[in-house]
Parts: sequence; structure tokens; C-alpha cells
Amino acid sequence: MILHGRFLSPFVRRVAIWMSLQGRAFEHRPLMVTGPDFETLKTINPMGRVPALTLDDGTTLVETFAIVDWLEETAAPEQRLLPPSGEARRGALQAVACANTLAEKAVALVYETVRRPEAYHWADWIARVQSQVATSLDLLEAHAPETGFGGGDQPTGATAAVVAGFDFVGHALPHLVAEGYPRLKALSERANALPAFSANKP
Amino acid sequence: MILHGRFLSPFVRRVAIWMSLQGRAFEHRPLMVTGPDFETLKTINPMGRVPALTLDDGTTLVETFAIVDWLEETAAPEQRLLPPSGEARRGALQAVACANTLAEKAVALVYETVRRPEAYHWADWIARVQSQVATSLDLLEAHAPETGFGGGDQPTGATAAVVAGFDFVGHALPHLVAEGYPRLKALSERANALPAFSANKP
Repeated sequence: MILHGRFLSPFVRRVAIWMSLQGRAFEHRPLMVTGPDFETLKTINPMGRVPALTLDDGTTLVETFAIVDWLEETAAPEQRLLPPSGEARRGALQAVACANTLAEKAVALVYETVRRPEAYHWADWIARVQSQVATSLDLLEAHAPETGFGGGDQPTGATAAVVAGFDFVGHALPHLVAEGYPRLKALSERANALPAFSANKP
Repeated sequence: MILHGRFLSPFVRRVAIWMSLQGRAFEHRPLMVTGPDFETLKTINPMGRVPALTLDDGTTLVETFAIVDWLEETAAPEQRLLPPSGEARRGALQAVACANTLAEKAVALVYETVRRPEAYHWADWIARVQSQVATSLDLLEAHAPETGFGGGDQPTGATAAVVAGFDFVGHALPHLVAEGYPRLKALSERANALPAFSANKP
């Protein structure tokens, strides 16, 4: 399998962590979504987004939720990272949902404040997105496990999503997490001590 | 159950269609994500996004992929709108993935060209997002069923996602679909002849 996209993307990194935790081998091609790479990327995913996962049969899967669905379905039951059903699944997916909002809004903030020329920055939008990043962080902090990984000693799919999202903010928007978030910081540290997380840092 | 968010959102509408196709009753509260509604919405989903689905036990689920996962899991097998596994599921989820990109990029285009004051419009960004909307539409057009709903005579989860996305573009950015897309237009027409689609138009 080939995973396309840079680990700077919290979505690409989530998929990389997911595959590593499942013990899957993959080749990594760190295509950017800007510059000359964008044209190359469109030959793989015509819509020009990452992650894109090319399977051994040549099919390319796009969009994180669909890639993860396939990874879960085709893994042996003991390698799956989400509970199969019930309240446990609902809770895990709500953690992933919260991590999604964090990642999407943090990416939107980087697009607005880093990539967009300053003359076109819109203060109202920056304030709105920044408040959504802060609320997502607060919710994740409140629910972060104090020890282990929530589901036990091993990281789960929720760990992959939450740590990839939190680390992205720490890397791309460090001023937003300079203070506070002790539980998320400790969770990230525990996770990044493991090869499935440390092998794909932004 | 209470579904929060306006049907103008292709994600809220997708969930409304999904629930209707499954024969589920729900109350609809059309909160906006702007103006005074935004503060009310944050009492339901602190991150301020729609759709949010409040279940009968008082729990509120957020993010479309997680809401749909719960709807599928808790439906009787004959009411499910996605194939359970294998290539059929992979294909259906890739159609949903493509509809996701269409909806996200079309929403981004509305945010940029309608909500954002004109002085802060960035032409490079508009061109980029517009090209991603066009490519998503082209892919969906190429794969749209010529008759029926792809999986048979009844609409599927992919139909819900694709038609909600396509109709959003037709409603909010009509110039982008004024020409072309005959198969998507016919699919939308067939779908919107059914109550599950016509009861929740934007």
C-alpha cells in the first residue's frame, strides 16, 4: 500500500498511525497539496486532497473516514482499533469526531493565517475558527485519559485521531497550546514514546 | 430525536434524508451557524457545528460520519443504507467520500465568496476550491447511475450524500451547474420525487 500526503497533515498522520498500530506495512509518498506536487497529487486523487491510500490492487481510497472504515473492516478482529458496537463504539467515535473538528479548524486557521496573504485576512473568521479550536481542545482535554490510552494499555483509533490533531496544533499553531492542556500533553507524550506515533512525526 | 441545523447544509440534509429513508421520526430545529443562533447551537454542540443529533437519552452526537455510523448500527439490517462489507461497501463509501469533498469545497466557496467581505476575497483560493468542486462533480457525474439509484430501485446512503451535495451546489452556487451534469440532474430529480428527499429541501 502507498500512503500519499505529508505527516504534517493531521489526517494523513492519523491514517499512518492507524496502519502502524494494526501492524500494516506501507510505503509513504509525502506529496504536498500545494506547488508542483498538487498536479502530481491530482493524478492520484483528482480532487487534490490527502490522505489518499493506494491499495495493492491499484485502487485509491480517499477521505479519512472511508480509509479508516476499510482498514477496520479488512483487519483481523484483534487488530481493530474501534469497538465493534454499542456505547463503547459511540463514545470512541465521538472522540474521533471531536478530534476531527480540532484538525479541520486548526487546518483552516493555518490556511487563513499562514498561507493566505495578509491583506486578505479576515479578523472575524480568525476569531471564530480560533474559538472552535479552543473549544475542541477543551472537550478533548476534559475526556483525555489520565493514564494509559482510555481503552487500556494500548492506543486506540481515538488515540490516533486525538494525538494527531493535538500534535498538529502544537507544531503549526504552538501559541494556542503553550499554556494548559496537561492531560493532552501527557497523552501525546505517552503515545509518541511508541514507534507507531514517533515514526511519522510532522 | 432532534436534528439541529438547517437543510441548507448538505451535511444536515444528508442526515435528514438518511433518517427518513430508514423510516425514523425526528424533530427538526433549523439553527443557523451564524448570528444569535450560533450561541444557542453552542449549548448543544460546544464546537458550534451542524449537524448535531440529540438522541432520546439526551446524548448529542456530532460530525456526519459518526452520526451515520450510529444510524447504521442501530437500524434493523433491512433498513441499513450501506452494504455491510466488501467491495460493495468500499465502492459506496468512495461515492460518499466524493460527495463529502464536493460538499466541503462548495461550502468553503460559499464562505469565501458570499459570507466573507469582498475586500478579503483571495482569487487564488477561489480558483483552487472552484477547481476541486468541478472535479468532484465530474467524478460523481461519471459514476452516477443512469436509472434507479445504483444499488437498485431504492436510494442508498450514497444517494443521500450525492444528491444532498449536488442540490446544495444547485441552490447556493447555481452558475457552477447551469451547464452539463445530465446524469446528476436526472438522479436528483428521481430522488427528489420521493418524500425522504422532498421533505427537507434547502
